[in-house]
Amino acid sequence: MSTGDNVQGEPKGDFGLIGLAVMGQNLILNAADHGYTVVAYNRTTSKVDHFIANEAKGKSIIGVHSIKALVDNLKRPRKIMLLVKAGDAVDNFIGQLLPYLDKGDIVIDGGNSHFPDSNRRYDELKAKGILFVGTGVSGGEEGARTGPSLMPGGNEAAWPEIKNIFQDISAKSDGEPCCDWVGDAGAGHYIKMVHNGIEYGDMQLICEAYDVMKRIGKFTEKEIADVFTKWNSGVLDSFLIEITKDILNFDDPTDNKPVVEKILDTAGQKGTGKWTAINALDLGVPVTLIGEAVFSRCLSALKDERVKASKILEGPEVTGESPIKDKQAFIDDLEQALYASKIISYAQGFMLMNQAAKDYGWKLNNAGIALMWRGGCIIRSVFLKEITAAYKENPQLDNLLFHPFFKDAITKAQKGWRASVGHAIAGGVPTPAFSTALAFYDGLRSERLPANLLQAQRDYFGAHTFQVLPGKETKFLPKDQWVHVNWTGRGGNVSASTYDA
Amino acid sequence: MSTGDNVQGEPKGDFGLIGLAVMGQNLILNAADHGYTVVAYNRTTSKVDHFIANEAKGKSIIGVHSIKALVDNLKRPRKIMLLVKAGDAVDNFIGQLLPYLDKGDIVIDGGNSHFPDSNRRYDELKAKGILFVGTGVSGGEEGARTGPSLMPGGNEAAWPEIKNIFQDISAKSDGEPCCDWVGDAGAGHYIKMVHNGIEYGDMQLICEAYDVMKRIGKFTEKEIADVFTKWNSGVLDSFLIEITKDILNFDDPTDNKPVVEKILDTAGQKGTGKWTAINALDLGVPVTLIGEAVFSRCLSALKDERVKASKILEGPEVTGESPIKDKQAFIDDLEQALYASKIISYAQGFMLMNQAAKDYGWKLNNAGIALMWRGGCIIRSVFLKEITAAYKENPQLDNLLFHPFFKDAITKAQKGWRASVGHAIAGGVPTPAFSTALAFYDGLRSERLPANLLQAQRDYFGAHTFQVLPGKETKFLPKDQWVHVNWTGRGGNVSASTYDA
Repeated sequence: MSTGDNVQGEPKGDFGLIGLAVMGQNLILNAADHGYTVVAYNRTTSKVDHFIANEAKGKSIIGVHSIKALVDNLKRPRKIMLLVKAGDAVDNFIGQLLPYLDKGDIVIDGGNSHFPDSNRRYDELKAKGILFVGTGVSGGEEGARTGPSLMPGGNEAAWPEIKNIFQDISAKSDGEPCCDWVGDAGAGHYIKMVHNGIEYGDMQLICEAYDVMKRIGKFTEKEIADVFTKWNSGVLDSFLIEITKDILNFDDPTDNKPVVEKILDTAGQKGTGKWTAINALDLGVPVTLIGEAVFSRCLSALKDERVKASKILEGPEVTGESPIKDKQAFIDDLEQALYASKIISYAQGFMLMNQAAKDYGWKLNNAGIALMWRGGCIIRSVFLKEITAAYKENPQLDNLLFHPFFKDAITKAQKGWRASVGHAIAGGVPTPAFSTALAFYDGLRSERLPANLLQAQRDYFGAHTFQVLPGKETKFLPKDQWVHVNWTGRGGNVSASTYDA
Repeated sequence: MSTGDNVQGEPKGDFGLIGLAVMGQNLILNAADHGYTVVAYNRTTSKVDHFIANEAKGKSIIGVHSIKALVDNLKRPRKIMLLVKAGDAVDNFIGQLLPYLDKGDIVIDGGNSHFPDSNRRYDELKAKGILFVGTGVSGGEEGARTGPSLMPGGNEAAWPEIKNIFQDISAKSDGEPCCDWVGDAGAGHYIKMVHNGIEYGDMQLICEAYDVMKRIGKFTEKEIADVFTKWNSGVLDSFLIEITKDILNFDDPTDNKPVVEKILDTAGQKGTGKWTAINALDLGVPVTLIGEAVFSRCLSALKDERVKASKILEGPEVTGESPIKDKQAFIDDLEQALYASKIISYAQGFMLMNQAAKDYGWKLNNAGIALMWRGGCIIRSVFLKEITAAYKENPQLDNLLFHPFFKDAITKAQKGWRASVGHAIAGGVPTPAFSTALAFYDGLRSERLPANLLQAQRDYFGAHTFQVLPGKETKFLPKDQWVHVNWTGRGGNVSASTYDA
């Protein structure tokens, strides 16, 4: 089909899509492959014409040049997905759509919207009788084409209407669709946000392993590619390890040298990774690995300052031959460091989602979330199969690390993990994500942390009071009370009830 | 004086203060000591009566039972400070004050308000002709009494009116007042926020040193107190090290055992430290040490989960005698770890303030900020004298670490720093702040970080494009362009111009 600007007779469209950037085009082609008739619109309408004349040619895709035509071409209840830049553009298109929609129609935001915006849009559209769905879409351009991970949340009344198309076009893992209903309001975009945060973490961990191999092991890109190839058949088997191998093997045809070596080492960070770290701070959950991953991108972006610093600040760089004698042990240790750190990162991510479910009143299904991430999306991995299994076995699992599979994995990984961080520290190579994961592991394992001293300091300078450790109460330090000690003999007896110094 | 509810004749009050918690009472007594007549009000008026009858007795302090009486007792332009809980209480009191104020009167918020609120209040009051000042106040209860650090910002027209009293009651460092005008709008509260973030970092670093001495060195509290006593006469000389020594030496009179050992190890975090970390993420500045300090408090708060984890998760705990043979070297290394990490934390803090000055259009004086923190406040230290000197010498200093003093200090500290983190990792003791500081240092020193691989990954799965490293351009990887490589040979040629996967 081609254009549908003047629709006659009954509308034929099953699904409408606004936004013909790469993700939008590929999702449309994917849906058409599954037998759906898709109506395609883009603000710059020349994109519509180009798409219809080329990629969409001969497929069940109708191009339109106006919002009205988009709506006119859709069967009721209409299902319209926006794949546009998060922010005002979403509100603008919703505003343009509203005059043409009827009660029960479904507006789906498939962009990377921030979940508080989705919460708001859910409420606003609910008041008008329109069903809002905010859905995470992950898998990049290829995933969109062949089967992305989809994480829909919002107005649950929409789910029966969109379930078939969503699960048809989504990725499958062991036959199960990597798409299920996530939860109320902005829950779908929330889960996608955490997914992206975890993606930031996974990428940072791979970069650290690469950097350690390169700067301490003195490996070539091809040797590192071989390591990743091997890792991809073990516990680290995943999309990101696989593409890393491809990247390291990809040479510039003009000189047959690895392209990766020629890429500017500055990464942007203004998105969902940052939101995840901020949300973790807001909810008080120590999601340290994603935090460090985001900050690592920030530091990478300070290229000029780093170049200057590299000429001023000294360190124990490995300048000649690698100090590593047993290369296989070095690689094996590094594999364990990456694996253990990854386990920590996912444990932190699920801690965050559990807290969000409590704070926001959502009922989240951990096993379902792990399954949605199991295929199609950027963080897909064999590892997520184990997480799915762990949560299916015990949906109330307090912490992923408490499940025997992960407990055993991290126990076994520990020696190599500590050794790898040791190599990095001795060799002056930054491994902030490996290090923070290890510190978190040792902190979580600590029945007692030094926060007792911190509480004493706060009470000393700000009369903030503290609680007594159960079993350690005395007449001077009574039970079940907030105690203030006059540490200096000089301070007053007023506690800081309303003022936080 | 006593109550001033029925003022007759000319008002006598130089300064009004609302909020008689510990900070407010002590600031009033401080101002009275300097010859100012202070008018005191509190919502729960029994606090006024108690204060006037006791601590304020015989001093130039007028107690009042209403907002109207507070204003009636003040000379013009009135200067009224709020020391109440940040948030709605501040807006409520401003609302109560407004009907009684005249143009040119000055409302000072001395609480820990979030700087965007101060930006807003500055604008709102400016529109009504009232001069808003948001001031950081640090020093805890004792600092408020004897001389706090004050960081005022807001409507600069207020500064000549309040400068004398502010500088009189503030702390002095080498004769200079630890109080100067910070900048426009919410800049005062911004600087106080960063101060508090740095305070979080300093406290975390001390806790980590204590924990390593205790769990790896197997030192007693008294032995650790002796170490801090010694450190307090060296490069670490500071208020927080001094009080740590006092705390570790403070015994429960009922059994003569250290109180600190009996304090519950859970710390709260919902304040300015969190705001600093969030702001750092928002501005894209890698303030990793404060981030880890905040997350460490979050982890400390998960006491039940830690107790459970301590019984499940294994590690290399030092259970018998300490493995440390040379105790003095161990302590000296730890001192260097603490010192170097602290240098990193302050360097990160100034990086953040420099970025804020750019993004928010403030003109901040780094030397002045360091001087304000030099005395009176919680983070006061000898070390801040060096920072003041460095910025006085070169106000345009790109990075604190580039100044010879700090560059030399950290070069010297490095060996011990790396050794200490090594001890902690080998012994299973978490040192997230030491570790992240070291990773940041090694990252900043890295002319090339592995973000090149990260950019390749983003281009692989999301067609995000990348830039070519200068000097590495080829026909395939052209100069000054955002390049997309078709890594798999399968993807399309559409770049992700409007969609961020």
